[in-house]
Amino acid sequence: MIAHSLKGAVFGPAARLHGATYVVDVEFRRPTLDADGIVVDIGLATKALHEVLADLNYRNLDEESSLSSVNTTTEVLARVVFDRMVRAIRRGSLGLGAREVESLRVTLQESHVAWAAFDGKIGEAAP
Amino acid sequence: MIAHSLKGAVFGPAARLHGATYVVDVEFRRPTLDADGIVVDIGLATKALHEVLADLNYRNLDEESSLSSVNTTTEVLARVVFDRMVRAIRRGSLGLGAREVESLRVTLQESHVAWAAFDGKIGEAAP
Amino acid sequence: MIAHSLKGAVFGPAARLHGATYVVDVEFRRPTLDADGIVVDIGLATKALHEVLADLNYRNLDEESSLSSVNTTTEVLARVVFDRMVRAIRRGSLGLGAREVESLRVTLQESHVAWAAFDGKIGEAAP
Amino acid sequence: MIAHSLKGAVFGPAARLHGATYVVDVEFRRPTLDADGIVVDIGLATKALHEVLADLNYRNLDEESSLSSVNTTTEVLARVVFDRMVRAIRRGSLGLGAREVESLRVTLQESHVAWAAFDGKIGEAAP
Amino acid sequence: MIAHSLKGAVFGPAARLHGATYVVDVEFRRPTLDADGIVVDIGLATKALHEVLADLNYRNLDEESSLSSVNTTTEVLARVVFDRMVRAIRRGSLGLGAREVESLRVTLQESHVAWAAFDGKIGEAAP
Amino acid sequence: MIAHSLKGAVFGPAARLHGATYVVDVEFRRPTLDADGIVVDIGLATKALHEVLADLNYRNLDEESSLSSVNTTTEVLARVVFDRMVRAIRRGSLGLGAREVESLRVTLQESHVAWAAFDGKIGEAAP
Repeated sequence: MIAHSLKGAVFGPAARLHGATYVVDVEFRRPTLDADGIVVDIGLATKALHEVLADLNYRNLDEESSLSSVNTTTEVLARVVFDRMVRAIRRGSLGLGAREVESLRVTLQESHVAWAAFDGKIGEAAP
Repeated sequence: MIAHSLKGAVFGPAARLHGATYVVDVEFRRPTLDADGIVVDIGLATKALHEVLADLNYRNLDEESSLSSVNTTTEVLARVVFDRMVRAIRRGSLGLGAREVESLRVTLQESHVAWAAFDGKIGEAAP
Repeated sequence: MIAHSLKGAVFGPAARLHGATYVVDVEFRRPTLDADGIVVDIGLATKALHEVLADLNYRNLDEESSLSSVNTTTEVLARVVFDRMVRAIRRGSLGLGAREVESLRVTLQESHVAWAAFDGKIGEAAP
Repeated sequence: MIAHSLKGAVFGPAARLHGATYVVDVEFRRPTLDADGIVVDIGLATKALHEVLADLNYRNLDEESSLSSVNTTTEVLARVVFDRMVRAIRRGSLGLGAREVESLRVTLQESHVAWAAFDGKIGEAAP
Repeated sequence: MIAHSLKGAVFGPAARLHGATYVVDVEFRRPTLDADGIVVDIGLATKALHEVLADLNYRNLDEESSLSSVNTTTEVLARVVFDRMVRAIRRGSLGLGAREVESLRVTLQESHVAWAAFDGKIGEAAP
Repeated sequence: MIAHSLKGAVFGPAARLHGATYVVDVEFRRPTLDADGIVVDIGLATKALHEVLADLNYRNLDEESSLSSVNTTTEVLARVVFDRMVRAIRRGSLGLGAREVESLRVTLQESHVAWAAFDGKIGEAAP
């Protein structure tokens, strides 16, 4: 649940400070399962996602220094969450097994009709 | 898609300026159908709802004078939309037949798990 | 999945022969459960609903004699399904226990935004 | 996510030990909002529901002594959750304001087509 | 919301004139975002899709000359919408930036269980 | 609707016998449509899927000999359904045309937030 404004003629009334609720889903993919028969530990994955979102939730993104150089569109935020989730995997927050994950799809859904996703390989994440 | 802040210890981090996207549904009820076999003209109803929402959408509700005396919780906003939709019915914006509508349920949904509704008879609306 | 046309100026382009898919839900209500701890036998209820819908599905409703006197709006069709489901209950098609059901809500959903329901007591059904 | 078996000829193959995942929703209703403009503190309500469900989740209900006298149908479980949520309200777990809640609707959804709900006033709960 | 009939033994009762409501979604994909941080202007995309669908909506497709050589299955209609959306992109109806879109996925959903999609690169569209 | 237990420290309380309801979807893909303009006969596909699921439904998977060597996680079950659906295609249960299907995606959904899928080419199926 964030507040923000968007810069650019294309955004019309969204250039005003307004807000959005996003439902955020992350899909993890790997070619073979781990020894327990799972892709990732869903408990650790949920916890890591909550931590990534806690840094964005209930905020005015116009005032977040880490986002000051970008327009915080749904597309851009999907990429931000992707990069941060990959960092969590690399740190080991999803367990050692999660290092076998090859790609992620991060979807931010505003409503039944408006959503954006970033779908990429782990290696595409910003360091 | 609104920005707002909420006053009260119960709201925790939602006391900061943040935002929300609401999917808004209105259910119209009447005991018998009109001569065409319908409850309301869904085209006029959709148009009236869009007009009511246009006054709230893409705004920072903290700066809306008509809402300055209330906390703009989901529950309160559901009531605001209810009152304004009843006014649209009384003005005739949904057609003459819609005056037979007895009650409305206005639901604001933020996500699969968080929503609020106001369900009331037409006569309960603020004048 | 039906074809039909609607008579009346209010329907605009829907006066042309066109079609609709409805997802049909029936909610059964009773004050206390039966001896098995259920409201109705969901298997029998599903079968009865399929039989009611089989008489309407894959048809041009403009040519159904049982519907010739009405506009086959979503609202009217919800009532038609309600009446026919009550008849199925009275015939015993849902089992003896289902005779304790007090009211039904029949919902026909065309899409996330367009639906109609008939909600009534068993005694309100056409004989 | 529970395992259980059901006793009674009506259940057919469900007389075998099998399982179910339920998505559980609770709707809280009151005639007027509290001083903060809310129905209940959604954080406390979510916590109380998680505690009620924790006593049922990941279990074989056939072995739960508190449920030994009933068939653990979806309908019966909806009532069990209702009674336990009312007890949580009476204990104050949802805050003092929640004592103004008049009625609850507890829904257990197994899938898009199979669900049951118990809808009742607070006073109807087992003590 | 269309009426149509389908030719072929495989269709059984769907060989009769009947109808369908489709919920139509279009997913746009590109490797990098435009200067505003978006994939396409969602306002222009929605308008273009509405225009494409307006030529199909509230019609008996059996009488549409542009579709006379095909069976208007959900699969075929998904391809028709794909081809027409690509033409809208090529005409510039979605803005100059949309010319960077590489592929589209067009989904026509009749219900929770029945849907079809055409997923292809822009270059695969009929001219 | 199955009962099962999972072996491994990662599963915590799910090591107890418990249960799950899965909503199972299968997506069929092919580069071109058949002569009738369809991907598969949805009636035959639904029947084949029901037959595959009938061997798993209403059971305690801990007692199924065909699954005794694996942990019956959602991921593993998605693969089991994939392999069995491919066998049904090879046997001709979905019609001759279905032999042109190139890949399947089998999704098992426990809830809005928990699901797993196996997505693979027909040739990847176990023989």
